[in-house]
Amino acid sequence: MQTAAAVQCKPVCRPMAARPHVARRPAQLAASAAPIARPTFSSTLNQRTLKAGRVASRVVVVKAEGGDKIVVIGLAADSGCGKSTFMRRVTGIFGGEPKPPSGGNPDSNTLISDMTTVICLDDYHSLDRNGRKEAGVTALAPESQNFDLMYEQVKALKEGKAVDKPIYNHVTGLLDPPEPTSSPNILVIEGLHPFYDERVNELVDFRIYLDISDEIKFAWKIQRDMAERGHSLESIKASIEARKPDFDAYIDPQKKKADMIIQVLPTQLVPDEKEGKILRVRLIMKDGKKLFDPVYLFDQGSTVSWIPCGRKLTCSFPGIKMFYGPDTYYGEEVSVLEMDGQFDKLEELIYMESHLSNTSAKFYGEITQQMLKNSSFPGSNNGTGLFQTIVGLKCREVYERITQK
Amino acid sequence: MQTAAAVQCKPVCRPMAARPHVARRPAQLAASAAPIARPTFSSTLNQRTLKAGRVASRVVVVKAEGGDKIVVIGLAADSGCGKSTFMRRVTGIFGGEPKPPSGGNPDSNTLISDMTTVICLDDYHSLDRNGRKEAGVTALAPESQNFDLMYEQVKALKEGKAVDKPIYNHVTGLLDPPEPTSSPNILVIEGLHPFYDERVNELVDFRIYLDISDEIKFAWKIQRDMAERGHSLESIKASIEARKPDFDAYIDPQKKKADMIIQVLPTQLVPDEKEGKILRVRLIMKDGKKLFDPVYLFDQGSTVSWIPCGRKLTCSFPGIKMFYGPDTYYGEEVSVLEMDGQFDKLEELIYMESHLSNTSAKFYGEITQQMLKNSSFPGSNNGTGLFQTIVGLKCREVYERITQK
Repeated sequence: MQTAAAVQCKPVCRPMAARPHVARRPAQLAASAAPIARPTFSSTLNQRTLKAGRVASRVVVVKAEGGDKIVVIGLAADSGCGKSTFMRRVTGIFGGEPKPPSGGNPDSNTLISDMTTVICLDDYHSLDRNGRKEAGVTALAPESQNFDLMYEQVKALKEGKAVDKPIYNHVTGLLDPPEPTSSPNILVIEGLHPFYDERVNELVDFRIYLDISDEIKFAWKIQRDMAERGHSLESIKASIEARKPDFDAYIDPQKKKADMIIQVLPTQLVPDEKEGKILRVRLIMKDGKKLFDPVYLFDQGSTVSWIPCGRKLTCSFPGIKMFYGPDTYYGEEVSVLEMDGQFDKLEELIYMESHLSNTSAKFYGEITQQMLKNSSFPGSNNGTGLFQTIVGLKCREVYERITQK
Repeated sequence: MQTAAAVQCKPVCRPMAARPHVARRPAQLAASAAPIARPTFSSTLNQRTLKAGRVASRVVVVKAEGGDKIVVIGLAADSGCGKSTFMRRVTGIFGGEPKPPSGGNPDSNTLISDMTTVICLDDYHSLDRNGRKEAGVTALAPESQNFDLMYEQVKALKEGKAVDKPIYNHVTGLLDPPEPTSSPNILVIEGLHPFYDERVNELVDFRIYLDISDEIKFAWKIQRDMAERGHSLESIKASIEARKPDFDAYIDPQKKKADMIIQVLPTQLVPDEKEGKILRVRLIMKDGKKLFDPVYLFDQGSTVSWIPCGRKLTCSFPGIKMFYGPDTYYGEEVSVLEMDGQFDKLEELIYMESHLSNTSAKFYGEITQQMLKNSSFPGSNNGTGLFQTIVGLKCREVYERITQK
């Protein structure tokens, strides 16, 4: 269990690429505690938060901006699976550059842009790194989370109220003093447990699960921890093994509740491709939902496999294979869109986009435009980037249907 | 070889369904020789025809109707493979009910409608049934054909001239007196050897090959000869075996010259389906031809497999699977459209039609309309009927491009 906790202690939600200059810089860390604005507390302190020993976070009533409904989007995923890239693609669709709260703790996990606020649910850890070590639990265990406070604050934010949200400092492993968080148009909660607690889950309007298969997780970890950080293969294997029981017990089952699941799997185009460089990515979309329509390829409800033409789309070996069709997912009817392989020229994506329907794009080529805008992001040449972008458009569709904009 | 000849002696080109009342009725046969109109002969007699002992056929010059180009379409196929149904689908597209020449030999193999004349190349047998028996050759052998006369008369008809065309009587196995045949807008030559003789082949503007796989031929023969005619399995097998060498040597190689090939294969949807009831039909279309554009499914040049939706198309087990993609065929680039399985409701074909492009239909739904018009024809619920109809539309496209109508 100690090993598992150690793995979890790596920064999991930090939007590294968005603000690389503040990551892991002790000088800034030391300076960070002082300037945080602290509104007056008015509600009862949370017992479990208190037990965690550091911060007292509560709901603060503020005037909601206008009478608009606030939309809550949940993203569940394991750590190190590209959540921050995903979030940048999603928030980018609503405009504005996502930034941490200005003048606040530089280790804040929150990202704010014009319309969206992304909060990391690791901030609701009830136990800090030492606390988990002492209790012998991982950061994935429900015992390490403060679901009461999570519920209370997500509910408050959804009601247009500001809150003092705790901060879990991924660098120190400590719970820093809380930061004031006001209610946005769109609240994104991302982390390990957005749908675990049924009260929190009920507050979420659109549920996304990023499901990285064990093979790909392993390949990515090898790449990062072994090649870039010098860890041994054995230690990587051990950390994955130690982490797996809690992951399987508490994180993985949440995908059943998701509206859309992005599954990342090894390619089927190349036999025994073990490096996780060529991906088969599946976008699983629940059918019959009021707030969004599943994307389809060529013909809604049919089963289609499509190898795009070499004349219209440049793809070096092993090319691209798309699939679309109906399926069931834990007993529910879903539509599945799949992309195996990768493309060479991002601008040619327009050709593939032209055959996708119900994408929620506002104009022909919007997906390609978004992908080009974010072309430096990881996954921009394969299904992860494409489907994250599509999910972003779906977030906008959900937002517009709820607020009737 | 005798067995093979015996197989060939069955009516091969007779449009049974078009005029079932005249088929194999001895009373009418006896009366049929007299009323044939005989125009004055003016050119030299053909030696091989004379050798066959019965008819002298030559070219007769007549005034061509207008200055329009005459289009020649060739259909090659083995006997008993549904050529007459195919022809009825094709000629039906040009309008008018195809009928045998009025007042002529009721065993004429010719079918005339408003714009088309279909002649059966068996009429150019140089040897009748007895002659073949004596010579020890099959009806498939080049030695049994009068290619000189075939060339001479097809050329004349293409030049707008009328001819006195011989008649091979499939009932008696004899060569009947010739029938006057005038030049139509569209001349269809169908039979075993439309592309065998290079001079004849050169006259053909659009070449179609109906390629029934051995498995399906066998299944159909079993069905017809065993179930309906009481032949033994052994005799059927023997007749197929005996016929095969000449078929492989003289008929089959012509498919390389074809512009479009309809391949009929066993289904891949049901393992070990041996009855030939569920068919996988492939339409192979040469790329880069001036006179027609290949049909495509969803996206030109891509490789697509499509299982149409159960909600939009009713298909009982085993359903339908469509395929489209580029391929090569004897070294030439082709586009392949494939349909495996069958549909239940012909009127729902409009849904499939809506996803096919470059069909040469003149209006949305024309394929479905044609299929409905001919719904009683064999193959109307599967790819044979669909692709024959599409090939019919391509014949019209070829005709219109040549005549610039």
